Amino acid sequence: MNDQYAAMWEKLNLDLEAHDALLEVLGKFYNDIYLSQEKRLRGMEYLDFVLAEIHGLRIKELKEAKENGQKIIGTFCIFVPEELTLAANAIQVGLCAGAEAGKEKAEKLIPRNTCALIKSFIGFKLARLCPFTESCDLIIGETTCDGKKKAYEVFSQYVPMYIMEVPQQKYLSDRELWKNEVLKYKNKLEHITKNKITPDKLKKAIKIVNEKRKALQRLNKLRKAIPTPISGRDVLLINQISFYDDPLRFTKKINELCNELEEKIKKQEGIVSQDTPRILLSGCPMAVPNWKLPYIIESSGAIIVGEESCIGTRNTRDLVDESAETLDEMIDAIVDRYLKIDCACFTPNLERIEHIISLAKELKIDGVIHYNLLFCQPYAHESIKIENILREKNIPILSIETDYSMEDVEQLKTRVEAFIEMITP
Amino acid sequence: MNDQYAAMWEKLNLDLEAHDALLEVLGKFYNDIYLSQEKRLRGMEYLDFVLAEIHGLRIKELKEAKENGQKIIGTFCIFVPEELTLAANAIQVGLCAGAEAGKEKAEKLIPRNTCALIKSFIGFKLARLCPFTESCDLIIGETTCDGKKKAYEVFSQYVPMYIMEVPQQKYLSDRELWKNEVLKYKNKLEHITKNKITPDKLKKAIKIVNEKRKALQRLNKLRKAIPTPISGRDVLLINQISFYDDPLRFTKKINELCNELEEKIKKQEGIVSQDTPRILLSGCPMAVPNWKLPYIIESSGAIIVGEESCIGTRNTRDLVDESAETLDEMIDAIVDRYLKIDCACFTPNLERIEHIISLAKELKIDGVIHYNLLFCQPYAHESIKIENILREKNIPILSIETDYSMEDVEQLKTRVEAFIEMITP
Repeated sequence: MNDQYAAMWEKLNLDLEAHDALLEVLGKFYNDIYLSQEKRLRGMEYLDFVLAEIHGLRIKELKEAKENGQKIIGTFCIFVPEELTLAANAIQVGLCAGAEAGKEKAEKLIPRNTCALIKSFIGFKLARLCPFTESCDLIIGETTCDGKKKAYEVFSQYVPMYIMEVPQQKYLSDRELWKNEVLKYKNKLEHITKNKITPDKLKKAIKIVNEKRKALQRLNKLRKAIPTPISGRDVLLINQISFYDDPLRFTKKINELCNELEEKIKKQEGIVSQDTPRILLSGCPMAVPNWKLPYIIESSGAIIVGEESCIGTRNTRDLVDESAETLDEMIDAIVDRYLKIDCACFTPNLERIEHIISLAKELKIDGVIHYNLLFCQPYAHESIKIENILREKNIPILSIETDYSMEDVEQLKTRVEAFIEMITP
Repeated sequence: MNDQYAAMWEKLNLDLEAHDALLEVLGKFYNDIYLSQEKRLRGMEYLDFVLAEIHGLRIKELKEAKENGQKIIGTFCIFVPEELTLAANAIQVGLCAGAEAGKEKAEKLIPRNTCALIKSFIGFKLARLCPFTESCDLIIGETTCDGKKKAYEVFSQYVPMYIMEVPQQKYLSDRELWKNEVLKYKNKLEHITKNKITPDKLKKAIKIVNEKRKALQRLNKLRKAIPTPISGRDVLLINQISFYDDPLRFTKKINELCNELEEKIKKQEGIVSQDTPRILLSGCPMAVPNWKLPYIIESSGAIIVGEESCIGTRNTRDLVDESAETLDEMIDAIVDRYLKIDCACFTPNLERIEHIISLAKELKIDGVIHYNLLFCQPYAHESIKIENILREKNIPILSIETDYSMEDVEQLKTRVEAFIEMITP
């Protein structure tokens, strides 16, 4: 594969040798964590292929799209409205932020006490390892946390950046600020793509993104079955790929997978036995290929049936109201939908704990594992609150704080195994 | 002293024993760091008295004010407009946040990876050690950093809280949001004090706070003299006291001190010799009694001639325009003045580095020491940027990251001494 794309990667100014090494590690990692799973679903072939070709075929598609005049918009956050990006005939992709890369270089530009995700996207750029970052015409940052907000100041010296300000509360004046940000983003897109966002185009784009969310909602509902028909690792991968792949293709493939899952459920064919402890994973986003904790959990005798996370239900729970007809109504619908996001960046963010409790009931979970990226302050604060509230409600919870290194794997295993033993029915 | 006020402290529900121990440590600390200084200024007697009576006489004044129907408003941030507080006939005071107190208790409610200042105000409350916090009718939080924003959620379970949202950029829509926040604060004040804020009252209050800032501006200008007439420790203390004492009394006393300094300057009487290396201290706020680093610097043969900090020039640089006549004009003047604050919470916050460079020139400094509270992300990010820019400009800089513990004092001394040796002319 590497030879096939070497010229393309070279043109993107990647560090070819280091990139080859990265892909090799990623491949081995994927093999161990994904391909080794028993009773693999047919529908996962698509995801295996996408993942295998994530730096290959997908980048080639982006390249061809660029040659056809389309613009590539990179993001790190679910606050960037993909509806607008698509309506401007641009392509929105998530950027590499899930593995240790260029860490030493990154730590010269941002504090060591920064979360691994932020260090990673800076490091990927400095080490020239992310073909998505290198393909972007514009990268959208947001002010969701101090770490990202300030890191984007440095990042903007290396990539073309645009910042969206996400408010910190949800009052009327916050909505006004956010609406203004959404409109500014629309203008920015129109300016760089030279495409006018019309009501027609936006209506279509809203539908496309809603359909993607609906497919993921359908998938999440199917996981309620006991025994559950799909591993948490696979669903995490699906959520991760949802940020990279073409939305129409992705939606079609996920719906096909859901058909397969429905058949399995009818036959009561689970991915694990009926009495396997069911875990709700909650907390910080897990960007590709950050599969460390899910792998530990699922190889310790439990199964993950929900991800309360940006790369999970936080991104798919709410749809944009499709009844809007005028452009302004559509913008309002987008503004309102995105302000429903229960990110820890908001204060007081009471919705999130309600969502966790209702997910816990719906998915009939045996315990919650809260995942915090070391030095992520907003989620670290909420993890203490959530722990206290869930304990009061007699919902078992384990709080994990970690980063992308493999040094703590054995220690995490011990803690996770003890927790799973405790909650095993 | 303790006996005299014991009944008052008991009524405030302080932990008397622990509070006595705290005052004893504080007294010793003050003696070592302040009273031991040579060539002490007459004008510092006022500050020695205020500091000695900070939990005594000043709290008694607040108590009497409360008995006369005045409300006490506590703050942790220079974004809370004291003009409005005074115009509502309320008293604004800073709250204890500068020493380790109740740390273990605090770490059960907020993450360990939280800066010492935040841990301190939570700890002071949980350990019942801050008579200011206990005297407050309302405490105003703000959304300036993730740490405080999320810690206030917990803090609000223990004290009456109100949150002001500080925007993260400085565009028109940010100003609108901030103006709305200022107006909401005005309404809140009118509601709890039952006093209407009239143009007359606000005009007077604007003048009072401006006069306080002017006195501090005057003080800072006098420090330009070579040799400088006052120690940095003393000016830090003055800045700290500016958050606690009655503004009219404070302004009068600081102006008297400035008169004394002018005499000294005329006679070329410095607090140190002419060739003492001059330091600009820049970075995180130093709340009472956080004198660790200034003491290390000034006992290592250098003198601090400027504090680029919230408890320093950031709070005093800008005045509110006094030409406004209507209430709305005055509100606008307040809104604009506070949006000039160059806090690291803003992105990109380019003003701050400009201010540092111009301060460095004005004060004829030999080097900058940047002070970062461990885990304060916004200032940690800026410290790297500032270091790079100052190095390009050949302005020596030393970056220090520390907290309130005394464990690193020897290590800090070694680093500071080496830096001072390097920059000694």
